[in-house]
Amino acid sequence: MTKRKIETCFSPVLYQPEEHMNSIVVIIDVLRASSAICTAFANGAAAILPVADADEARLYKSKGYLVAAERDGFVLDFADFGNSPFNFTREKVEGKTIVYSTTNGTGVINQASAAYAIAVGSFLNMKALTEWIIRQERDLLLFCAGWKNRFNLEDTVCAGAMASKLMDSGSFTTICDSTLAAMDLWTLAMPDLHAYIEKAAQRTRLRDKKLDDCLAFCLTVDFTEKVPVMKNGFLVDNIL
Amino acid sequence: MTKRKIETCFSPVLYQPEEHMNSIVVIIDVLRASSAICTAFANGAAAILPVADADEARLYKSKGYLVAAERDGFVLDFADFGNSPFNFTREKVEGKTIVYSTTNGTGVINQASAAYAIAVGSFLNMKALTEWIIRQERDLLLFCAGWKNRFNLEDTVCAGAMASKLMDSGSFTTICDSTLAAMDLWTLAMPDLHAYIEKAAQRTRLRDKKLDDCLAFCLTVDFTEKVPVMKNGFLVDNIL
Repeated sequence: MTKRKIETCFSPVLYQPEEHMNSIVVIIDVLRASSAICTAFANGAAAILPVADADEARLYKSKGYLVAAERDGFVLDFADFGNSPFNFTREKVEGKTIVYSTTNGTGVINQASAAYAIAVGSFLNMKALTEWIIRQERDLLLFCAGWKNRFNLEDTVCAGAMASKLMDSGSFTTICDSTLAAMDLWTLAMPDLHAYIEKAAQRTRLRDKKLDDCLAFCLTVDFTEKVPVMKNGFLVDNIL
Repeated sequence: MTKRKIETCFSPVLYQPEEHMNSIVVIIDVLRASSAICTAFANGAAAILPVADADEARLYKSKGYLVAAERDGFVLDFADFGNSPFNFTREKVEGKTIVYSTTNGTGVINQASAAYAIAVGSFLNMKALTEWIIRQERDLLLFCAGWKNRFNLEDTVCAGAMASKLMDSGSFTTICDSTLAAMDLWTLAMPDLHAYIEKAAQRTRLRDKKLDDCLAFCLTVDFTEKVPVMKNGFLVDNIL
């Protein structure tokens, strides 16, 4: 069987939609959107509606939806909560459809809308996600949300972990320098992921805003077996 | 003294000119433009006029200039030669002003024109360049030309080598994730730079086009003490 290609994109401004129309695109925004989304499904959320625009999120709130919305890490005034994974408790989210708008994550999901399939990845669902990817017969793009269009370490290292697992499966190949770099950075980070991410810029930003309580949790590998995928505009738990 | 900041940009589409108007910008295009430019000055070139547009290069040729111009590694029909460093021999370039247009490198130089100063960096002038940077009282952006707007390994590793040298000097600081990643990749590559760059995508591209004869040369550290800098639209050897 022909090996499937892995590519990695380090920033939304580097994304080229026309190149990935037949690929699976995995959205990675470790701190904190993709970790929060995985947590929501782990706690029984029925669906998540990603909206890029804050006004759209506000409109859904007025219609009675549960709304998670933040900008730069701070909860918007009309929202029920922001994007700390710790907000998405079973008590709040079980059985619910959540409208979700964040600085980076949801914009990126919309940007990838022309792809064959979109999934959400984080350290939290690493094993389940990569096993799901292996079962698909598709090329793969690991799409790092970054921070304000910049490269960031935590998304890159997470992409590197996914790529390394997939390459180990023997079903994938890559000639993409971004993927090679991400795998090398994962190799460096793996022995002590927490210490490695300590130096990341977003780590400092979250600490300055006292939003870093969820950091250790977001670096937990294989917390859940949920694989959020886009279906008809909503993220749902993928059931094969 | 306040430490100066180092940032790294992995692709022309990530460059934000307004953030670097008071900084030194170092253009890095290891395979092959910045290596060729350093070689030209090592061999006595008087000046290099970077032009992004092939038609503009053609016009200069008709005016009698020596013209280096390529696209995707191939020499344009009107040009004297392309951008292999091996073309810029002392016999051809000594005392001459060369008009130079390449796929990535010269476009990036023009893109950075609002910066306080622009220099050209490669492995070939690593020590001289970093010593020159240390003498300036400015923040620094390491601007990787990449390949067709994509991240590439060889420019990143070269940026990482520069950043590591500068951080070792004690005069610099960085909270830029791209710079941290580049330094880590340099740490991995340093013990055997040639082996590391073997896996880079551009390496494969050059081999496929039989343009890889200059690869080992482009990875030579400290071949020259020249530091090409922009002055009045021309690259000249910086003389302090």
